[in-house]
Amino acid sequence: MFCGDQPLLSRMLTEAGVAAHPRIRFVHSDDQVSMADKPSLALRTKRDSSMRHALDLVEQGTVQACVSAGNTGALIAMAHYVLKMLNGVERPALVSALPSCNGKPVYMLDLGATVNCDADTLFQFAVMGAVMAEEVIGIRAPRVALLNMGEEEIKGSDQIKRASQLLQECRDLNYIGYIEGNDIFSGKADVIVCDGFVGNVALKTCEGVAKLILKRAQQGVKQRPFAALLSWLCKPALKSLYQGMNPDQYNGASLIGLRGIVVKSHGNATKDAFLSAIRQAVCEVQRQVPAKIKDRLEQVLIDKA
Amino acid sequence: MFCGDQPLLSRMLTEAGVAAHPRIRFVHSDDQVSMADKPSLALRTKRDSSMRHALDLVEQGTVQACVSAGNTGALIAMAHYVLKMLNGVERPALVSALPSCNGKPVYMLDLGATVNCDADTLFQFAVMGAVMAEEVIGIRAPRVALLNMGEEEIKGSDQIKRASQLLQECRDLNYIGYIEGNDIFSGKADVIVCDGFVGNVALKTCEGVAKLILKRAQQGVKQRPFAALLSWLCKPALKSLYQGMNPDQYNGASLIGLRGIVVKSHGNATKDAFLSAIRQAVCEVQRQVPAKIKDRLEQVLIDKA
Repeated sequence: MFCGDQPLLSRMLTEAGVAAHPRIRFVHSDDQVSMADKPSLALRTKRDSSMRHALDLVEQGTVQACVSAGNTGALIAMAHYVLKMLNGVERPALVSALPSCNGKPVYMLDLGATVNCDADTLFQFAVMGAVMAEEVIGIRAPRVALLNMGEEEIKGSDQIKRASQLLQECRDLNYIGYIEGNDIFSGKADVIVCDGFVGNVALKTCEGVAKLILKRAQQGVKQRPFAALLSWLCKPALKSLYQGMNPDQYNGASLIGLRGIVVKSHGNATKDAFLSAIRQAVCEVQRQVPAKIKDRLEQVLIDKA
Repeated sequence: MFCGDQPLLSRMLTEAGVAAHPRIRFVHSDDQVSMADKPSLALRTKRDSSMRHALDLVEQGTVQACVSAGNTGALIAMAHYVLKMLNGVERPALVSALPSCNGKPVYMLDLGATVNCDADTLFQFAVMGAVMAEEVIGIRAPRVALLNMGEEEIKGSDQIKRASQLLQECRDLNYIGYIEGNDIFSGKADVIVCDGFVGNVALKTCEGVAKLILKRAQQGVKQRPFAALLSWLCKPALKSLYQGMNPDQYNGASLIGLRGIVVKSHGNATKDAFLSAIRQAVCEVQRQVPAKIKDRLEQVLIDKA
């Protein structure tokens, strides 16, 4: 089901040669949320936007999931308002699978939905991340770590220390302690938990580093002898190197903790990358991720009592 | 002047063939701060450690700077206690020059000295970072940015928003607004300000990404045809690519805001990298960085009034 400007969508589908697909339906919107819209304003004034329509359809049960490449802040605010939080979850989290050195994806959350997180929120994120890793990629007893500035117990903010205590006391999670930024991609943990500010900065820093290294490598190649040959030979390696950080298969951050499934795609996603975000949503529908999160949180609370 | 176990130091200097150097002097210590020592405990109990002796020498004016590759947390706690803060600075910051896409270094602070920073502290860090960029690498009116999770004014935590307001009102700084993680290395800013937790995670994440990309690139090289030739040809590029993120010339994080000069070297620094940390200290002595920071902060306060 496509939410948006129907004539425009029809034209694009015709151009792509798929307009006649029998399962395509439209929900027309006159309005849209722009990338510059403030989330709070979009929430109040953009009730006839494609984004709002898509979320309303999830809330009504007409569709099972919403996939959007739009304004992230507005999507979070609207999804929070329309779909509401699951019982036992205070704040939503953006979670994404990242590549790791051992080839297995690592789930990191929150990547920017909740700026300030207290210990309880970080604890809930840990439970939600573990459910994602178990359900979506089938890791049994995923290793959960808190992102911190050191591995020792004394390091970090008070919230993180308290969250670590809560996680240590929880028998339903395979909590392995603190992890530092240099181990995000090492494969030491399957789920990495942090607040939205730190997660967002860390993720975007990766992008910056990848660009810097690519530039350096290209310069390095140019400066060496046999430059032309080497440059030509290296091109695929350099390209795969950059894509290794931004691969299509890692597109799609799930907004979790809500009573419905919402997947955020990169705004500049390729066709394949957008497909990957849709696949992510389908997988969450099949595995009933929101219900599993709710069940797991209830279980944790029962075991705690 | 070497602080530490004198017999051990003498032996090492003899092995290196420089024991007879006329300017070498020793301050013997029986004790040392280990990497596992808690900062607070080291501060209380390690008064006869090499680290404490080195800082005492700075405080007494016997030496002009301390360069240490020891326990970072203990060094910060001890330096804070022994050297005291400059007037107008509430908390110390670790600052380091990082590489950027345009070839010019970018100063980032705080990298882990102060976990929680309020708006005033972030403002002071901005002033200190600007002085470093001006004095140490001679950038006139360095562009100062706050690291945030978005470039819009509405993004981020309350501290960051208030710090941004303080920086906008300050005529003595070339404040350019918010910057995101993906622009840390883009060359958009000369000084990037954040709290110690975020800075530490971001910096260590860079290390993790660099390792991941190197591993991916090596795998990519192996999988391609002409593998042996290509691998051999690419080796220098791949090596320089990794070193590009961890280069010897970027070793040496300065602990600033104190009434004395302290430079922290990586614990596993090579000879060249350690030399670079010493050079950094010498430069700060020559440019009288602590006095310049003090003067600039006074100037800012006068202009504000």
